[in-house]
Amino acid sequence: MSTNGTNGVTGNAPESNTARPAHRFDPDFTENVIKAMGHNVTPRNRQVFGSLIRHLHDFTREVELTIDEWMAAVHFVNSVGQISTKTRNEAHRISDILGLESLVDEIAHKIISEGDIDPTSSSILGPFWSPNAPFRELGGSIIQDGVPPGGQVALMHGVIRDMTTNQPIPNAVFDIWQASANGKYDFQDPENQSDNNLRGKFRANEKGEYWFYCLHPTAYSLPTDGPSFKLLNLMDRHPMRPAHIHIMVTHPEFQGCTTQLYPKDDPWLATDTVFAVKPDLILDFKPKTDDPKATLDLEYNVYLAPKGYKGKQLP
Amino acid sequence: MSTNGTNGVTGNAPESNTARPAHRFDPDFTENVIKAMGHNVTPRNRQVFGSLIRHLHDFTREVELTIDEWMAAVHFVNSVGQISTKTRNEAHRISDILGLESLVDEIAHKIISEGDIDPTSSSILGPFWSPNAPFRELGGSIIQDGVPPGGQVALMHGVIRDMTTNQPIPNAVFDIWQASANGKYDFQDPENQSDNNLRGKFRANEKGEYWFYCLHPTAYSLPTDGPSFKLLNLMDRHPMRPAHIHIMVTHPEFQGCTTQLYPKDDPWLATDTVFAVKPDLILDFKPKTDDPKATLDLEYNVYLAPKGYKGKQLP
Repeated sequence: MSTNGTNGVTGNAPESNTARPAHRFDPDFTENVIKAMGHNVTPRNRQVFGSLIRHLHDFTREVELTIDEWMAAVHFVNSVGQISTKTRNEAHRISDILGLESLVDEIAHKIISEGDIDPTSSSILGPFWSPNAPFRELGGSIIQDGVPPGGQVALMHGVIRDMTTNQPIPNAVFDIWQASANGKYDFQDPENQSDNNLRGKFRANEKGEYWFYCLHPTAYSLPTDGPSFKLLNLMDRHPMRPAHIHIMVTHPEFQGCTTQLYPKDDPWLATDTVFAVKPDLILDFKPKTDDPKATLDLEYNVYLAPKGYKGKQLP
Repeated sequence: MSTNGTNGVTGNAPESNTARPAHRFDPDFTENVIKAMGHNVTPRNRQVFGSLIRHLHDFTREVELTIDEWMAAVHFVNSVGQISTKTRNEAHRISDILGLESLVDEIAHKIISEGDIDPTSSSILGPFWSPNAPFRELGGSIIQDGVPPGGQVALMHGVIRDMTTNQPIPNAVFDIWQASANGKYDFQDPENQSDNNLRGKFRANEKGEYWFYCLHPTAYSLPTDGPSFKLLNLMDRHPMRPAHIHIMVTHPEFQGCTTQLYPKDDPWLATDTVFAVKPDLILDFKPKTDDPKATLDLEYNVYLAPKGYKGKQLP
């Protein structure tokens, strides 16, 4: 480890510091904390921690954070880990309500088409995807345990296409998971749901088509007994997510798309508490009268980018 | 709670947004997360959370934080609370090694004198101050349990003065606490130390003078079994604090000073892992041959600002 840093005692200005900061505090403090990193830091860690320290200090000086506020934040951070368990990840939830997961997802997946069709927008994975969802037959149903009280059945169907050619992608895999009408996923709700209820994978046919039965999704609240709800209250925000269906569409020759789809009339659409709604992810459920198994019809077409496709490179 | 925010679905640009951000991501995303705060947020919380969200997002875009890095951070935050207990505050320690407590302390206490004498610099309180330290007689000793192996006794003395007049402050209270020669404070070390060992309060005489016996302090390491040490390793930094003595000097008519004092020859002085060293807090221990109770002499004079004294107001 390095012992060559300084922390302001020597009074040397950092070499890279050409302008004085516009505040009344020690102008070398932040540079000195960053320079305390030793020689053996990876270049990426040096970049990430340097930027993190600079923004943390700039935030602190900008609002002149008080000692009481800092101490409240210290207690808050400890409380986040203390309520977390194997099946509850409160730090994940805190980052979601601050928009962080949606932002990281955009950074990882944003592609702007060079042609007329953009690929389907990605959205956050969330904590409820399962690698164990079974393949089901086209035309089958993910409603394994029967229609729950209040549930409405939809025939969901569409075509999976290459966004550069508009041609179908045969054999693309359409993986879907959703909460039941009580707002709970199978492994949150073992009393009412069997494993893999409301989950399934479907392999598109030679025309890139998929179709199956699922539920109209239901809006639900984030947990209201922990630090994330406390933070929402401090910001005068509600804990609701709009109703949504999770999908993950993959094919070996294409960039996979993990996203969420939302009914267009959901009351929480404009204020999703995790900021995961995008315009092309909004669904139009229509009445269906020609099918005894479903009262709703839902068409949704997916556009994937080929592997290696970068799209327009904006600055 | 508010349900009037937007999260980008409506596509309205925020009213206050006059310039487009210099990046390729959704230019409205951060403003929309900030605008999700409802009408009933206190003005201070609106300021603090707005700035926090803006800096968190700017950091994330600046380094293009990856999904794997974000997920590692989520697990790290949970681990901080999970190792914390009533006597271990890991979030406090994480904030210290990022320089945050020292920065908050500077923001709260920085006074730049309008005259020739600056007040004694403040430094971080740390987690080991006790409200229960006993008053002891001037000339007494805080070494309640005898001199520990390796310990060296010093006669510490000085005058507490008004920095605006250079006049002594009779009856000022000088509260001192320090770790023993093994680097542990009394309540971390019940096998070797009784309550209030190496703690005490002294009331200055009519000339503002104080004097008592204490130990030459000992450098110590932060704990090496938790998230803060993991973070130090990622930054190629050591976990050492220089040897130090904690003091808190108070008087009803003056602004109290809580700070730490450091021997000038300590090897960790320039790289204190919590960035709490300032030039005027460095001590000069001198050999002492005229006192059978002490081998070292330590003079340290303290300067307090009167209550209400603001000093030079820099921008």
